[in-house]
Amino acid sequence: MNILVLGGDGYCGWPTSLHLSARGHHIGIVDGFLKRQWEYEIGTQSLTPIRSLHHRLRTWELVSGKKIPLFVGDITSYDFLASVFRRFQPDAVIHYAEQPSAPYSMMDRQHAVFTQVNNVVGTLNVLFAIKDLAPECHLVKLGTMGEYGTPNIDIEEGFIEVNHNGRKDLLPFPKQPGSLYHLTKVHDSHNIMFSCRVWGIRATDLNQGVVYGTMTEEVALDENLINRFQYDAIFGTALNRFCAQAAAGHQLTVHGVGKQTRGFLDIRDTVRCVELACLNPAARGEFRVFNQFTQQFSVLELAEMVQTAGSKFNLDVKIAHIPNPRVESEEHYYNAKHTKLASLGLEPHWLNDSLVDSLLNVALKYKDRIDNSQLMPDVDWRHGSSAARSRAGQDEAGAEMTSPALALS
Amino acid sequence: MNILVLGGDGYCGWPTSLHLSARGHHIGIVDGFLKRQWEYEIGTQSLTPIRSLHHRLRTWELVSGKKIPLFVGDITSYDFLASVFRRFQPDAVIHYAEQPSAPYSMMDRQHAVFTQVNNVVGTLNVLFAIKDLAPECHLVKLGTMGEYGTPNIDIEEGFIEVNHNGRKDLLPFPKQPGSLYHLTKVHDSHNIMFSCRVWGIRATDLNQGVVYGTMTEEVALDENLINRFQYDAIFGTALNRFCAQAAAGHQLTVHGVGKQTRGFLDIRDTVRCVELACLNPAARGEFRVFNQFTQQFSVLELAEMVQTAGSKFNLDVKIAHIPNPRVESEEHYYNAKHTKLASLGLEPHWLNDSLVDSLLNVALKYKDRIDNSQLMPDVDWRHGSSAARSRAGQDEAGAEMTSPALALS
Repeated sequence: MNILVLGGDGYCGWPTSLHLSARGHHIGIVDGFLKRQWEYEIGTQSLTPIRSLHHRLRTWELVSGKKIPLFVGDITSYDFLASVFRRFQPDAVIHYAEQPSAPYSMMDRQHAVFTQVNNVVGTLNVLFAIKDLAPECHLVKLGTMGEYGTPNIDIEEGFIEVNHNGRKDLLPFPKQPGSLYHLTKVHDSHNIMFSCRVWGIRATDLNQGVVYGTMTEEVALDENLINRFQYDAIFGTALNRFCAQAAAGHQLTVHGVGKQTRGFLDIRDTVRCVELACLNPAARGEFRVFNQFTQQFSVLELAEMVQTAGSKFNLDVKIAHIPNPRVESEEHYYNAKHTKLASLGLEPHWLNDSLVDSLLNVALKYKDRIDNSQLMPDVDWRHGSSAARSRAGQDEAGAEMTSPALALS
Repeated sequence: MNILVLGGDGYCGWPTSLHLSARGHHIGIVDGFLKRQWEYEIGTQSLTPIRSLHHRLRTWELVSGKKIPLFVGDITSYDFLASVFRRFQPDAVIHYAEQPSAPYSMMDRQHAVFTQVNNVVGTLNVLFAIKDLAPECHLVKLGTMGEYGTPNIDIEEGFIEVNHNGRKDLLPFPKQPGSLYHLTKVHDSHNIMFSCRVWGIRATDLNQGVVYGTMTEEVALDENLINRFQYDAIFGTALNRFCAQAAAGHQLTVHGVGKQTRGFLDIRDTVRCVELACLNPAARGEFRVFNQFTQQFSVLELAEMVQTAGSKFNLDVKIAHIPNPRVESEEHYYNAKHTKLASLGLEPHWLNDSLVDSLLNVALKYKDRIDNSQLMPDVDWRHGSSAARSRAGQDEAGAEMTSPALALS
């Protein structure tokens, strides 16, 4: 199968590309290295020393004998995206190419507008490219469980049957996302659903939980294939971040009470879920939603697991309940369905002590690369980032963000 | 009250500005004349000979003694919007300043991307301006009944209590909009709801039905205050369009069966609804949704009313069921609630024969201004506009739309 991976240099996109390449699919990677730019902007980097994408791809060819063509560019440029579609003729497109951080989107107005334009326009371009250039192509789009928020009812997979005043209908599940980033995923979902209905596009919206881990079968083959491990407060996610904090001798920063419960999954399950979606494509005109996670945990539970693992490494790990920079419920009902990927054959890697141990091992191996100033959250949902606040009043004088993603042509 | 009207040169914005000015409020109008540009692009104009906004405002000052300051600019430029906020210090902002046409958004990729960026970024800028420069200001945002689509259950005003697996919650009403334009209103609603929750903004989202009529008490005072009357297939809406078609001796173009049912209201009720929202502001942090229409009709019912009225003017009006250019249900359940504005004191102008007669009279008065080539729909939801199709393949070579709204800085 010809599979194009948009955002194939990223934390999930890279191991996905290798996983599918190893299984005999013809993979093409599209990446504009925007994520690496945002890291320069923030002043952070992956805990693990990731190589340039060109280096990674040369290594993969040496290790596996498989060649993955690379298309460098920004999908918010339709010129670029259309030329890739014409050359690569994809049967499936896996779309990871979005600004993926909630705190980044909440820094200030410019980052909010940038995130919304970047993500929404990129996805619109993908939809038009499929409609006009590859109508049979299956879109596999990465959404997030964060689209649903924390309703006081069970979360279904995309749709819910509503009984109301004696009538009923199967309707899109109501969305209550928690940041301007999460909102872009909701906007995307609505745009994609519409395009399936009107243009007959086949799409699978993967509402992914929080991913942890860094290693997959293919990434482990060579140090030069090493995957990202983000530990900073902007791009890092819960479990990986706690391991880095423990390795650095820093308190684990739990936001408030810590009873915020979310869906989580191992990155080895991410690549398998995406593979299952590709192998079992949506029908023409079908808009399908899978909730892509394997287990629910509270943030505090994860912190306690890392604390326990730390004791085995003779680390004295402390948990700190810091003021919550986000606006969210810290104790709430949470029960989200996730049976569709299991019914396609997903066999989860459950989170256990040995996985936490191995993650902590990775963090300890590279702990000299940790910048302690990146460990505490700086972006407050109500007030933005302190860096942005120190620029207060300059917004009007300043131009919009000059990332290539905003230059739409 | 200091009330800023964004899009105050438009079909609803102009009579709203006069209505509120006449009632003693201090009004400021913001407009970048993008709508007038889009008319040049399409090659259409208002059936009624509207004056320049400067001319309109001079006339209003002569007629009423009231001065309305004008701020010319595009709200997708935050520099501009913030400077207006600083100078005008609004107590309420009425936000009409969006690309308002579904067919325009469906012409091709460029118009789709333009519409989504223009509308979403404009509203984000308004939210940040309120948050940072006028936190007590009440946002009165024009949404559309089209956000809901046509579910098989009663449509509530913004929120619905869902009972599911023995638990319940009050959730945002699920949205199934019918065009890439309607989708922008859904995106706006989600962004606004979030900003109310996180930043304590007060907002009223007016899900307005299809507006008909052209005359209000103030507009009628002087020919130079005359309001828009859009009859073309891009910007015109059902009843007004049918009257223009009848006046031009053209068949009334009903899309398909014509049982599509929607909520409608007289433009005199639009201005009153917006006034009621301003006089009864939302609380800090409250996201309020009002369904703003007064009666439900099918498109065919409206066509038949115009046919009946035509016979009084000795017009032989024929109804044509043309192939539906949209993708929509042509027969469906439709029962939308609309009690909140009534409970604030709205006394509707019901649609009756004399109103249709007067509209037909306006159309006949200006029928020499009708361009018959603008009467048939040209934009197909599946295939775009024929003009865009004739440019097929050029999209990649062509730049993005160069309207100032896309130059975000």
